Amino acid sequence: MIRLFHVPLSPFCRKVRLSLAEKKLEVELVEERYWEQDPDFMRRNPAGKVPVLKMDGRMMAESAAICEYIEERHPEPPLMPRNPEARYEVRRIVSWFDDKFHQEVTSKLLYERVNKKVMGQGYPDSKNVKAGAKAIKYHLDYMGWLLDQRRWLAGDVMTLADFAGAAHLSSLDYISDVDWHRNANVKDWYAKIKSRPAFRSILADQVSGFRPPAHYSDLDF
Amino acid sequence: MIRLFHVPLSPFCRKVRLSLAEKKLEVELVEERYWEQDPDFMRRNPAGKVPVLKMDGRMMAESAAICEYIEERHPEPPLMPRNPEARYEVRRIVSWFDDKFHQEVTSKLLYERVNKKVMGQGYPDSKNVKAGAKAIKYHLDYMGWLLDQRRWLAGDVMTLADFAGAAHLSSLDYISDVDWHRNANVKDWYAKIKSRPAFRSILADQVSGFRPPAHYSDLDF
Repeated sequence: MIRLFHVPLSPFCRKVRLSLAEKKLEVELVEERYWEQDPDFMRRNPAGKVPVLKMDGRMMAESAAICEYIEERHPEPPLMPRNPEARYEVRRIVSWFDDKFHQEVTSKLLYERVNKKVMGQGYPDSKNVKAGAKAIKYHLDYMGWLLDQRRWLAGDVMTLADFAGAAHLSSLDYISDVDWHRNANVKDWYAKIKSRPAFRSILADQVSGFRPPAHYSDLDF
Repeated sequence: MIRLFHVPLSPFCRKVRLSLAEKKLEVELVEERYWEQDPDFMRRNPAGKVPVLKMDGRMMAESAAICEYIEERHPEPPLMPRNPEARYEVRRIVSWFDDKFHQEVTSKLLYERVNKKVMGQGYPDSKNVKAGAKAIKYHLDYMGWLLDQRRWLAGDVMTLADFAGAAHLSSLDYISDVDWHRNANVKDWYAKIKSRPAFRSILADQVSGFRPPAHYSDLDF
């Protein structure tokens, strides 16, 4: 049995959940209050963060490494193209979201509004929230620009890059931080990805103390 | 011709340089003052950072994606093992250095001591320097623990994981921030990797205003 130690709104966990679901690999989800640094959890992952995936008898951390592993062990349906140039582009965009977008947007909005409260670390810093709200516009424009040239973020087929992007945006959408009117390409892309069966579990997430907007799980938002 | 836009002490750039050199791919190095956000440079990489590699007629950013691309296009000599479990472990450790180690150590020491001065951003924050000096101990211990069980960081052959680790440590060694007496395993491992021909260009780096300690380029340190 595959088991994922996660928190529902973590975009890194969501990316792994989407990969597993797309490949029809069943997973048991275990919520992990990783910030409490429970000794059992720290043994599972000395980096002290989620996601941690138990699969094939191993404990695995680091979402990028996990997703590549899932892809190599379960190549169908593919989430990575075959040629090196296209694979490069997928990895570049995954890093773009998990590094740059995460730092400029997700950490400034989601972590301020949700994680701080859940972890008992006080109130959102309005300077950060403002910076995140400003930065997401530029990122949505960049995604719109990519989608002007391609059907999906990294090319003409859906890949891990789309899951990385959708993981971040879906977490931010849960707290109403995505302006879907900003770019029609981005909205169409998200509607396509949101309607996939792999997305269902994510749309059903509930975080106590935070209620998603009505459109969050609406496929026709 | 392969061209790398870089800064000499960036561990992300050094990881790419090591990969290219190990595969005997000649590269022209171009120093890039990326923090000045020159429009030409921003066109090359909208993320506005180094490394940017020009190779096979493409401009590429994101060191993890670049290294995987180099590996796929030039598989010999291999820097990635063949089986998915071993590949997972390489990628996990690369992420460990480029994410956790970078955040806890490199950004606290190298960026405070060197980048701030070079970029004209004032003096090191002693709180950060202290935190980095404390954290590196724990990381050296972790590396020592891994090397108790394996010849190299991710297994019994040298891989990208070793280059990621050596890239960070070599940059920190340039500013005398690595205590080589802390762990004999780590020192032996670094001596092995430092003596490879691929390391030569890194040991010859000179950053104006910062003089490396005598042992920096000494193979018998």
